[in-house]
Amino acid sequence: MNTVVNGRVIYKAIPHGYPEPGKTVVYDATQAVDLDGVPLGGGILVKTLVLAISPYMRGKMRPAHIKSYTPPYDLNEPLYGYGVGVVLRSEDPGFKKGDHVFTENLRHEEYTVIQNPNDCEIVFNDVGLPWPIYVTAAGMPGMTAYMGWKEFSHAKKGDVVFVTIGAGAVGRQVPHAIDLVIQLAKLDGLEVISSAGSDAKVEYIRSLGADVAFNHKTTDTASILAEHGPINIFWDGVGGDTLDAALKAADFGARFIECGMISGYNGGFIPIKNIHMVMTKSISMTGFQVINLIPNHLANFRHEFPDLLAKGALKFRVQIMEGLDQVGEALMAVQKGLNTAPVVVRVAQE
Amino acid sequence: MNTVVNGRVIYKAIPHGYPEPGKTVVYDATQAVDLDGVPLGGGILVKTLVLAISPYMRGKMRPAHIKSYTPPYDLNEPLYGYGVGVVLRSEDPGFKKGDHVFTENLRHEEYTVIQNPNDCEIVFNDVGLPWPIYVTAAGMPGMTAYMGWKEFSHAKKGDVVFVTIGAGAVGRQVPHAIDLVIQLAKLDGLEVISSAGSDAKVEYIRSLGADVAFNHKTTDTASILAEHGPINIFWDGVGGDTLDAALKAADFGARFIECGMISGYNGGFIPIKNIHMVMTKSISMTGFQVINLIPNHLANFRHEFPDLLAKGALKFRVQIMEGLDQVGEALMAVQKGLNTAPVVVRVAQE
Repeated sequence: MNTVVNGRVIYKAIPHGYPEPGKTVVYDATQAVDLDGVPLGGGILVKTLVLAISPYMRGKMRPAHIKSYTPPYDLNEPLYGYGVGVVLRSEDPGFKKGDHVFTENLRHEEYTVIQNPNDCEIVFNDVGLPWPIYVTAAGMPGMTAYMGWKEFSHAKKGDVVFVTIGAGAVGRQVPHAIDLVIQLAKLDGLEVISSAGSDAKVEYIRSLGADVAFNHKTTDTASILAEHGPINIFWDGVGGDTLDAALKAADFGARFIECGMISGYNGGFIPIKNIHMVMTKSISMTGFQVINLIPNHLANFRHEFPDLLAKGALKFRVQIMEGLDQVGEALMAVQKGLNTAPVVVRVAQE
Repeated sequence: MNTVVNGRVIYKAIPHGYPEPGKTVVYDATQAVDLDGVPLGGGILVKTLVLAISPYMRGKMRPAHIKSYTPPYDLNEPLYGYGVGVVLRSEDPGFKKGDHVFTENLRHEEYTVIQNPNDCEIVFNDVGLPWPIYVTAAGMPGMTAYMGWKEFSHAKKGDVVFVTIGAGAVGRQVPHAIDLVIQLAKLDGLEVISSAGSDAKVEYIRSLGADVAFNHKTTDTASILAEHGPINIFWDGVGGDTLDAALKAADFGARFIECGMISGYNGGFIPIKNIHMVMTKSISMTGFQVINLIPNHLANFRHEFPDLLAKGALKFRVQIMEGLDQVGEALMAVQKGLNTAPVVVRVAQE
């Protein structure tokens, strides 16, 4: 017997607007688990190390009858999302004690039994990335940036790309993917125009390699694009007026990669006036969920991406919150856009 | 010497709104040509048989400094467009007297010297299609329908497609491509929803195989799509509210093929409210100009399409106007949407 408290984060109620810590998302420490004796049903027992807190999680906190690209969370059950853990016990021949596993469905509990670990990927992490970087840069934002870019950009050296999350963007799919997109575009030899909502962030994206970096709260996006365009690629994390400006500044045959729309989960949408340019300029505009790109791109991603991060060819920063009881606050910060980098909750040290 | 009058249609002035016959587009019969003696400069002399009158031609009647997907017409020169002619003389080893040629740049004159016939394709027409059908169904509308469908639809048996040119659509790229799209979709085993702006046209599209055919002037498009959707493919010849309704009715991963937007050449555009669904439903929306698809698809098109028409597997009707002096009226009819089928001007019998 080796019984310990098993902290969990329970999805208690459908939020109206922002998810409220303690009300819609509740930390619960009333359960215990016997690490030596808990039945595994042929699966594995995993100790949770890190959990990524992503904007898309808000989209799962919805009434079950509303269809979306990802299933809703079940009420009174733990949340789940991208995470890394270490195997403590295994009854599955594919896993052994000490293996690190990465999954998009890691339950928000300190210890978790995964009876059917089909969606767990064993992580070798030969290059020794810290787990908070692994679960974000080499996880959802990294996959979003890399796979979206490889699949849809059709980037050619000399192309001009505009990358932005726009003004006041909240609830975006994967906001910090754009830091990676800027760098991937530079690695491909492109001219990068990018904007941010504060001078500090403008400096940061310039340090990542953006050729033209501007503050879209103080500078008119359409004027910048008129001066430095036409653009061949638009990585759209915002929609609205910015999308209209990009349509206007688009070159023939431009590729628009739709990765986020402002106020997507908590508010309304801004009508688009220039959509006819999709036709007149032969633009291709594609929305995507990274989940659908994984089958074709995962092997290359795993082969290339952690290495680029480890050797510093790609820079990435994360914001770490300590302890599973911080998940509610972390979700709120991400929804309100208060975070300056992707948020990771560190549940335990190795 | 064999000198004859050579009627021509001259582009005289940039139209404001609709192109006016006799003013912006002028028939001129003052020129003569010596069919035996006119110098060919190494090229060919062609007698024009039929000319297709397409909505896109209005887009070429614009100030030269305005960029678009197709170059502007030159003032005081003849119009040009899709046409079929027969070779009378040739100094080019690739062509001989009696060859029929098809080109997208056939000048609107009865006899035309083509010094560099690189863009002329020799037409064999083994299946014996009438030239007015050839120049339309097997020409621009046919290529638009076939190549756009093959390239972008990713059609799977059982998919639901919505095909429309919408209410009051004028100045559309290739309005009558949709008659062919309906039939191509049925050949691929799809469920076809289609609308038209008159009960007669609704009957016609039903006769082409549309499973659900309705009059969008008297029936609400959104309700029909809610009942018979979700849709996997939208062949969009209209934009505006219809595009919004289609976004709402789209299934995950739907393909939107943008082939026309209402009032595209002569008026304003309607803002789109549901564009964020491109992201949330992973929709791909693609505008195209058929000219860019020709390199990859022409061989298959020439192999399959005329045969499908000749054996009646694809039905198509045209509206024939007799005589080169009718081009101005034909252009006007097409811009105003007064035609019930693609318009062809028959310049000469064989």
